[in-house]
Amino acid sequence: MSLTNASPEAAASSAKTASFTLATLPASARNAALETIHAALSEAKDDILAANAKDLEAARKAAADGSLSQALVSRLDLGKKGKWEDMLKGILDVRGLDDPIGQVQMRSQLADGLTMERVSCPIGVLLIIFEARPEVIANIASLAIKSGNSAILKGGKESTESFVAISKAISAALEKTEVPNGAIQLVTTRDAISQLLDQDRYIDLVIPRGGNELVRYIKGATKIPVLGHADGICSIYLTASADKDKAITGVVDSKTSYPAACNSVETLLVQDTALPTVLPGIAAALSEKGVSLRCDPASKAALASLSLPNIQDAVPEDYDTEHLSLTLSVKTVPSIDEAISHINAHGSHHTDAIFTSDKAEAERFMNEVDSAGVYWNASTRLADGMRYGFGTEVGISTNKIHSRGPVGLEGLTIYKYKIRGDYQPTTGYGEGEGKIPWTHARLPL
Amino acid sequence: MSLTNASPEAAASSAKTASFTLATLPASARNAALETIHAALSEAKDDILAANAKDLEAARKAAADGSLSQALVSRLDLGKKGKWEDMLKGILDVRGLDDPIGQVQMRSQLADGLTMERVSCPIGVLLIIFEARPEVIANIASLAIKSGNSAILKGGKESTESFVAISKAISAALEKTEVPNGAIQLVTTRDAISQLLDQDRYIDLVIPRGGNELVRYIKGATKIPVLGHADGICSIYLTASADKDKAITGVVDSKTSYPAACNSVETLLVQDTALPTVLPGIAAALSEKGVSLRCDPASKAALASLSLPNIQDAVPEDYDTEHLSLTLSVKTVPSIDEAISHINAHGSHHTDAIFTSDKAEAERFMNEVDSAGVYWNASTRLADGMRYGFGTEVGISTNKIHSRGPVGLEGLTIYKYKIRGDYQPTTGYGEGEGKIPWTHARLPL
Repeated sequence: MSLTNASPEAAASSAKTASFTLATLPASARNAALETIHAALSEAKDDILAANAKDLEAARKAAADGSLSQALVSRLDLGKKGKWEDMLKGILDVRGLDDPIGQVQMRSQLADGLTMERVSCPIGVLLIIFEARPEVIANIASLAIKSGNSAILKGGKESTESFVAISKAISAALEKTEVPNGAIQLVTTRDAISQLLDQDRYIDLVIPRGGNELVRYIKGATKIPVLGHADGICSIYLTASADKDKAITGVVDSKTSYPAACNSVETLLVQDTALPTVLPGIAAALSEKGVSLRCDPASKAALASLSLPNIQDAVPEDYDTEHLSLTLSVKTVPSIDEAISHINAHGSHHTDAIFTSDKAEAERFMNEVDSAGVYWNASTRLADGMRYGFGTEVGISTNKIHSRGPVGLEGLTIYKYKIRGDYQPTTGYGEGEGKIPWTHARLPL
Repeated sequence: MSLTNASPEAAASSAKTASFTLATLPASARNAALETIHAALSEAKDDILAANAKDLEAARKAAADGSLSQALVSRLDLGKKGKWEDMLKGILDVRGLDDPIGQVQMRSQLADGLTMERVSCPIGVLLIIFEARPEVIANIASLAIKSGNSAILKGGKESTESFVAISKAISAALEKTEVPNGAIQLVTTRDAISQLLDQDRYIDLVIPRGGNELVRYIKGATKIPVLGHADGICSIYLTASADKDKAITGVVDSKTSYPAACNSVETLLVQDTALPTVLPGIAAALSEKGVSLRCDPASKAALASLSLPNIQDAVPEDYDTEHLSLTLSVKTVPSIDEAISHINAHGSHHTDAIFTSDKAEAERFMNEVDSAGVYWNASTRLADGMRYGFGTEVGISTNKIHSRGPVGLEGLTIYKYKIRGDYQPTTGYGEGEGKIPWTHARLPL
């Protein structure tokens, strides 16, 4: 691992070379490297949190004068309850997972004496560009090493102090392991992003971890495939048959447990018949938690008698906005058809839920909503690699290919086909006189 | 299905709308549509081949004056032995495959009362851009319908007559099915490609079927993920322990059975100790088939006594060239290390083979060569969806994500996560006093 000032091209090239070695290391060597990283970070906790405090102080100042969002400050805070422990636990969780590499996913006999296997293997070189969230470095380094991929990390300037402190600890740790030096590259060169995005010869996948603007910029600026999500406009469709009391818990958790997260709910779609029955309790509970509601006329009217503070008129843009704060857009819909159409048109295909007691309605919603996560009576905040049991996550993808939803280890692998034969000519196979038939028989794994 | 003159944006938008309906059609309706298409094409065979003959005639003229490659003419020919029958058989093969949609790939209990399923679903809208190969229309239409995806097809001008004839037949056939009208869009508008590539709001995946230049242009011109391959520079590493007689069959098949195909071998790497033993018989057999050899000095010297015609001096660019014709680059290497390095640096990560009697050497080659297909004593021409038993193929991918190698039905699907719960707050889970533990237990499928 190196904290490098090398050119982006040199960093990418050496990461590629290292990837060939890393891909052939046994699981034991990759796991040992993770243990070494874990120990080094534990030991360096005080230094890292002190560095993070400097980043935080600068960020809070920037937030105070309006040049940085409060959401970003929140993401930066490594000292936030449980965050440090989660980061360290994530490394050991990843080590404890099954080796994703070398798994035979399919085995078949193509024809007599001709067998084929599909075997999982690393992707190659990953480029991870992140804004805040300094814990991403430890996450990505562990996931990359476990999955046999090289990784190039480029952090945002807001997390520079944390980034340098964490990377120093990881760098020193990796010197004691079999993981080759170039496998994890930390690029600190200013303005390196556009040059890194040109390295499609060496880099196989870009994973942006940041806001909408960053992701859109990256998608437009590179030929390399990009895995990630731009927005996180998640919705809950609240029906009249939802459990009145439990629905309060579900909506409050989805909105308030971490408003800056991409899996927080931003739009509450309310079935018209639920306006007088289920909505008021939810609105009151949200209001108590400090949530502002941006209501359409029907939902506003339904809540009028409660005299809640923080009720505002919604404007059309509210339904296309990721608030990332204690604000929730509320819209009344006459039916599940309208709810599904609204979500498919205005949502970001991330995570959407229906609250209902009707199983058939729930199944229809889950089948027809075109999102990575479709939930029945569950909090949108569940959309997370740890919560899904993947050990940790490299990000959440709203792509329609490769990996969708929380991306864990499996999303960092691809496969190759191995065929073993006896020099048979392909022209000898087929149907008809004198041809050898294909068997295409699945063999046990 | 419509052969449309609508704007690219309108075509993409209506394909997206249709995709939501198509995604919910049962397998029986999608399979019935394939049978209807099969019958319609069988019936229209004479008309389609007559149209194809017109395309071929124009292409042959263009090839004669040098404005079109012979490889493209070869790809255009729908009357070529077995091609029509393969196209029709492909449709029924696809119909006969298991439904790729709605498959539960993973089921787990996240915690008590909270279950998660990963279920396969269509990607959405595919954009297929192809140059020649008119059979692509039938292939793509069947694969898209079977997998519940909408498809927008844009053909090259060389195959216009064939394209119109095939699409007329398919279009009339689909009118009798439940597949919605907008699900298969055939765009004939000139110069529509750049506008189609801007429709990232509606189109989820671009699949170019054409040469290097087309693929590179597309990758640089769109934010939509692109699945495909640019080059097909496949290599065979011939070792001294290869079976002398069988190796002749293997190399001749890899080079001559369809030189215009992307899976034909372009480079023969020869272990130095194999120069006097294994190479001469292969060179003589290739020469007899009309293959020109571009040799490095060592291999040229080894063949000098044979006085073969068509032996030329290789230039460095030969090892980075997809000849797509009866030309083969030959290079001498001292060891498997050099062979692997050469392939990883100069190949196109498509399909590469080792010819050897040494199992350990073969396994090492297959593990370390970074290609979609890695073969031991097998022809590179095996890299094909039909030969792999996928029913047909949508293309061959050298991407490092999603789908690699021949892409069949599975490559046209993604998945969603369905979670069923009871409104539990996520804040209630975790470790420690009063927290509910995650179970993350795999459940049977």
